[in-house]
Amino acid sequence: MNTFGHRFRFTSFGESHGKALGCVIDGVPAGIKIDEEFIQNEMNRRKPGQNKYATPRKESDKVEILSGVFEGLSTGAPISMVIFNENQKSKDYTNVKDLFRPGHADFTYFHKYDFRDYRGGGRSSARETATRVAAGAVAKLLLNELGIKVQSGICEIAGIKADKVDFDFSKDSEIYALDKNKEDFQKEAILKAKNSHNSVGGVALVNVRNLPKGLGEPLYFKLDSQIANAMMSINAVKAVEIGEGTEASRMEGSQNNDQIRSAGFKTNHSGGILGGISNGDEINIKVYFKPTPSVFIKQETVDINNNEVEYELRGRHDPCVAVRGSVVAESMMALVLADMVLLNMSSKIENIKKVYN
Amino acid sequence: MNTFGHRFRFTSFGESHGKALGCVIDGVPAGIKIDEEFIQNEMNRRKPGQNKYATPRKESDKVEILSGVFEGLSTGAPISMVIFNENQKSKDYTNVKDLFRPGHADFTYFHKYDFRDYRGGGRSSARETATRVAAGAVAKLLLNELGIKVQSGICEIAGIKADKVDFDFSKDSEIYALDKNKEDFQKEAILKAKNSHNSVGGVALVNVRNLPKGLGEPLYFKLDSQIANAMMSINAVKAVEIGEGTEASRMEGSQNNDQIRSAGFKTNHSGGILGGISNGDEINIKVYFKPTPSVFIKQETVDINNNEVEYELRGRHDPCVAVRGSVVAESMMALVLADMVLLNMSSKIENIKKVYN
Amino acid sequence: MNTFGHRFRFTSFGESHGKALGCVIDGVPAGIKIDEEFIQNEMNRRKPGQNKYATPRKESDKVEILSGVFEGLSTGAPISMVIFNENQKSKDYTNVKDLFRPGHADFTYFHKYDFRDYRGGGRSSARETATRVAAGAVAKLLLNELGIKVQSGICEIAGIKADKVDFDFSKDSEIYALDKNKEDFQKEAILKAKNSHNSVGGVALVNVRNLPKGLGEPLYFKLDSQIANAMMSINAVKAVEIGEGTEASRMEGSQNNDQIRSAGFKTNHSGGILGGISNGDEINIKVYFKPTPSVFIKQETVDINNNEVEYELRGRHDPCVAVRGSVVAESMMALVLADMVLLNMSSKIENIKKVYN
Amino acid sequence: MNTFGHRFRFTSFGESHGKALGCVIDGVPAGIKIDEEFIQNEMNRRKPGQNKYATPRKESDKVEILSGVFEGLSTGAPISMVIFNENQKSKDYTNVKDLFRPGHADFTYFHKYDFRDYRGGGRSSARETATRVAAGAVAKLLLNELGIKVQSGICEIAGIKADKVDFDFSKDSEIYALDKNKEDFQKEAILKAKNSHNSVGGVALVNVRNLPKGLGEPLYFKLDSQIANAMMSINAVKAVEIGEGTEASRMEGSQNNDQIRSAGFKTNHSGGILGGISNGDEINIKVYFKPTPSVFIKQETVDINNNEVEYELRGRHDPCVAVRGSVVAESMMALVLADMVLLNMSSKIENIKKVYN
Repeated sequence: MNTFGHRFRFTSFGESHGKALGCVIDGVPAGIKIDEEFIQNEMNRRKPGQNKYATPRKESDKVEILSGVFEGLSTGAPISMVIFNENQKSKDYTNVKDLFRPGHADFTYFHKYDFRDYRGGGRSSARETATRVAAGAVAKLLLNELGIKVQSGICEIAGIKADKVDFDFSKDSEIYALDKNKEDFQKEAILKAKNSHNSVGGVALVNVRNLPKGLGEPLYFKLDSQIANAMMSINAVKAVEIGEGTEASRMEGSQNNDQIRSAGFKTNHSGGILGGISNGDEINIKVYFKPTPSVFIKQETVDINNNEVEYELRGRHDPCVAVRGSVVAESMMALVLADMVLLNMSSKIENIKKVYN
Repeated sequence: MNTFGHRFRFTSFGESHGKALGCVIDGVPAGIKIDEEFIQNEMNRRKPGQNKYATPRKESDKVEILSGVFEGLSTGAPISMVIFNENQKSKDYTNVKDLFRPGHADFTYFHKYDFRDYRGGGRSSARETATRVAAGAVAKLLLNELGIKVQSGICEIAGIKADKVDFDFSKDSEIYALDKNKEDFQKEAILKAKNSHNSVGGVALVNVRNLPKGLGEPLYFKLDSQIANAMMSINAVKAVEIGEGTEASRMEGSQNNDQIRSAGFKTNHSGGILGGISNGDEINIKVYFKPTPSVFIKQETVDINNNEVEYELRGRHDPCVAVRGSVVAESMMALVLADMVLLNMSSKIENIKKVYN
Repeated sequence: MNTFGHRFRFTSFGESHGKALGCVIDGVPAGIKIDEEFIQNEMNRRKPGQNKYATPRKESDKVEILSGVFEGLSTGAPISMVIFNENQKSKDYTNVKDLFRPGHADFTYFHKYDFRDYRGGGRSSARETATRVAAGAVAKLLLNELGIKVQSGICEIAGIKADKVDFDFSKDSEIYALDKNKEDFQKEAILKAKNSHNSVGGVALVNVRNLPKGLGEPLYFKLDSQIANAMMSINAVKAVEIGEGTEASRMEGSQNNDQIRSAGFKTNHSGGILGGISNGDEINIKVYFKPTPSVFIKQETVDINNNEVEYELRGRHDPCVAVRGSVVAESMMALVLADMVLLNMSSKIENIKKVYN
Repeated sequence: MNTFGHRFRFTSFGESHGKALGCVIDGVPAGIKIDEEFIQNEMNRRKPGQNKYATPRKESDKVEILSGVFEGLSTGAPISMVIFNENQKSKDYTNVKDLFRPGHADFTYFHKYDFRDYRGGGRSSARETATRVAAGAVAKLLLNELGIKVQSGICEIAGIKADKVDFDFSKDSEIYALDKNKEDFQKEAILKAKNSHNSVGGVALVNVRNLPKGLGEPLYFKLDSQIANAMMSINAVKAVEIGEGTEASRMEGSQNNDQIRSAGFKTNHSGGILGGISNGDEINIKVYFKPTPSVFIKQETVDINNNEVEYELRGRHDPCVAVRGSVVAESMMALVLADMVLLNMSSKIENIKKVYN
């Protein structure tokens, strides 16, 4: 079950401390210019080791395309990409070899598979999200052909909320902060956690513009349900909101409804989705990340024989996974939308005739 | 895309004002006692017209099983169930025939399908959720065989939050309230909205007990991502939280981690899921419903020719969809879990040998 | 696993001697005229009891549409159809209640499901193919919109082969014979088998005209592999050939290759498919049916306790299932093609722009 | 659509003259010993350049495992394997750059994707089948755990049929011949075709022993339909037979039925499958390969502008693809069976209880 999507599908592989990570993207239409520099730039936005707000693990995250591209264009064949691991330090994990780190997947993987890959979480490591960004970059190349724009940023760190949303600012912020006035406070919160060997959570906002009306496949592949699925599949995500989200449950119907004028919707409480289908307005999604479970403070746990132990983790970790996580959330959004663009093509006979006549 | 699930799959059909609704459940293992009375009781928990907090539309929601059951047991063949509509009043919708009701799927369905089924929303009506409850009841019969228990209730209406969670109390509450001390206030909020021709939102809590460790298929069919998908596919849902949910993003790592003792986890901030896999602890999910978009107050909209109009809706509607929605959320949880139970069977070679030797 | 297809998908349910059979067709584009008379006519071509060459079981096979159609057009919602059983005679099966009929699925269903639906095979009965014809009729309505024509007939019965192929003739033949000069001999072979309480096999030819180039999704959903899958899923089918089929293996490359001129292919040895993709030429498929296993001659078998018995079957059966089976094969072809038409829409970016611009 | 299987799934990528080929196998249960030497041996059985009956293209077809294996065991994570291309000679194809080679996929890929990868067929090349063998080897490792044995051989070349079937002999035959007495004649036929710049077809037999009863998912994922799908997806295959195959259509029911005694079936006309489900007897499948379309004789064709041309192909090709194709067919069988083993696990509640209790 390592495949995401239905018509624009990507399958990923690889572990945190294995030889390589990679993915195979199937369903990429032929004839799209595959801009390798763009793909690498997307990778660089997520890659570790770039500043003091992220893990010091250094990975160049250089993507190599193995198939599916000929003379710069997609061919319709699967596009495979590989990223070789460079900076694994498996020995960091020697002292947790037989322990279940609290807040991590160690415990559950062990019980599911009767097996313990102690090297940084193996497959459950957030390192896997590198492949999501690689695949998401290809999805964006498809979306670009239709003028659809996906962007993201951080709207909250450690409870410090952005008051405004400025995607231009966030692009150059080291923590992808959306609000210039809150960036310093948010940075400070991260460093404070880092210095006390702890971690903090945060919230990413993902926004989509220029999306056609009609995307989303009711009833069980609705646009919002597939987005929720995509976001909740990202490591450390514990909540997803569409539009007003949790606050919608506290509003009255007359207030929450977006009334309509001939020029469009008067408000956008819905977050651009009605009945699971895009309404042409902007999509707004909030993704809530828990604090990194890797803290360097003494914790209680058990080993694989259920003996109780106290231990202190070592290793290299992000003090706030939401920051780099926002790039992953943006990539997952692109993957969902690319899939929905393809799925929606056959919604009406008129479209089919356009293609075949 | 009207099929939900991978190994335990249900496919639904039917419109709010058509002849019938129904579903086909595929992948039900042979040999399960199919208790028709239990299924009907589940239907009754969701059915409309039961009290003043719900829509007055009267439907008996009588389920008829057409296939897949022989001498009281599932046969391994698809189980199909039909519910005939009885109390449609399509003429209620005459005055909105060509209008897009704000907050509804009318606008988006029209743009996706070039088509307008004005009769109560057609396929996008929450009436469809009756089939989810029917299928969910069969899922529960499977889960019961393994001792897994799914339950739900209302933890918030119009911002009035439950302080405690009592599933026994909620069973008999007309609004499925979890907190006896808040029930009256919550009821009052619903009636107040109803009397002012408006509506309110609410929040359902879904809880699972006695779930085996190891359910959930990483990476893109994680237990939490599939639950988020399931919940967000329900009409009017705008946010989903797992465990601490949005609040997890405001905690520190040391505080949010569930430390482990030999007897089990010391806390359950995670909501019973780590790395997308069940850890054996209770699952807790919150599902946020927006207020019913059907309000009987003058609103601005456009017709299918994009002419601006003001209109006032008529018809019969729930003043708070969260109440009956909680039963749907519980059913969707059962469907996800039944699927996960089957999917997990092949996680390790040891299990396969158990079946074939 | 009772769903067929990927984008144009049908899910079926029902047993030979249960209340009803039916199907749900998902992915039907909105805006197609759903001609109920046409659908019923297709059903009538397959239905039993029409002449002495088929089983005397009388079923009107009247299809009732329950959803997905509004004002005569498909709405994009799932189309469900039900056929109620009328002429079950379960008591015909009393004497085989605990026996495994040779050549039937009794033995394997029992071992797979620990369960015995003795009433005419239950789900494994060819009666299920009625739903394939109903769904296939809707597929044909989609194909008709693009001018694609699917037809079939019988090219061999009991080893008596057609020398020519005349689809116009076969339409009115009681045994769908393609060759007028062979029809009488083929009929005679069927009656001879019937009179000696035995049965014969036969071969159906399915032909497609006016298919666009480019249908088929390499590598594992090739047009020919999906057709083979579809045909082999029909009861009693034991072999499938594309184009020259088995004979291709006895030809030389220079002879088997279809050379190309600007007006098209010079020959059609390939059967219209190259590399798993349609080449615009006619599709020709041969489907081989074994003789009906239900013969009224003493046979050796065991019962569910593995006791050896001799028995003689009673009941009502086709002396040659290939005849009515040819209609099923034609329907399955229509279902595969409808699916392929939708799947192929996103093969190139140019098509996507056509739909969205 | 480059993924095969439902629970044991492999996704492949790569082109004949690109950097690499590879696959990702998802759904491999944890705890299986992954014997790399065995996998490489399987590759060697298919690899080109081994003797005068095959293409002289030299490829070591060395498989490198990138993920999913830790300390010699499968981990439950996707197993990815890469094979780097070594001996591409793209310039061989310069003279056919803009031509559609008769009998090849050039014409159809061009029309589907608006694109021409002239380098040896690109994705449509049989070189892709190397990844099927790699994945099939892993499938065999799973089947071995249950004692299931899959084998294959050549039963016919250029119309010269084997009279007996000896899998032990075929293992060491350069052309995998099943009948020692026919091997020389079959070899001669291949060389004769090769020397006259032509090619011949052939037939592979795939056999399975010790398969449990009950595999196959009715109705649309029957064991035989999935096998037919798998075989027909192999390059150059034009027909598939199960058991008696085409000959079954010429038998009488009383003759074709396999009668049953307490010790098992008296005959095996069915090929080990009844109602789409394995009956515990041996599976026998015949796969018919057309002659290699790459012949070095003048042929008529058109170029991408539909201009008529005559041309003579150069390059390196197998004079009889059936030989190495038999290994591919055997691998596909293993892949289908591994999938069916996993799918069948949830057929009855008793099995589910075995796993969870």
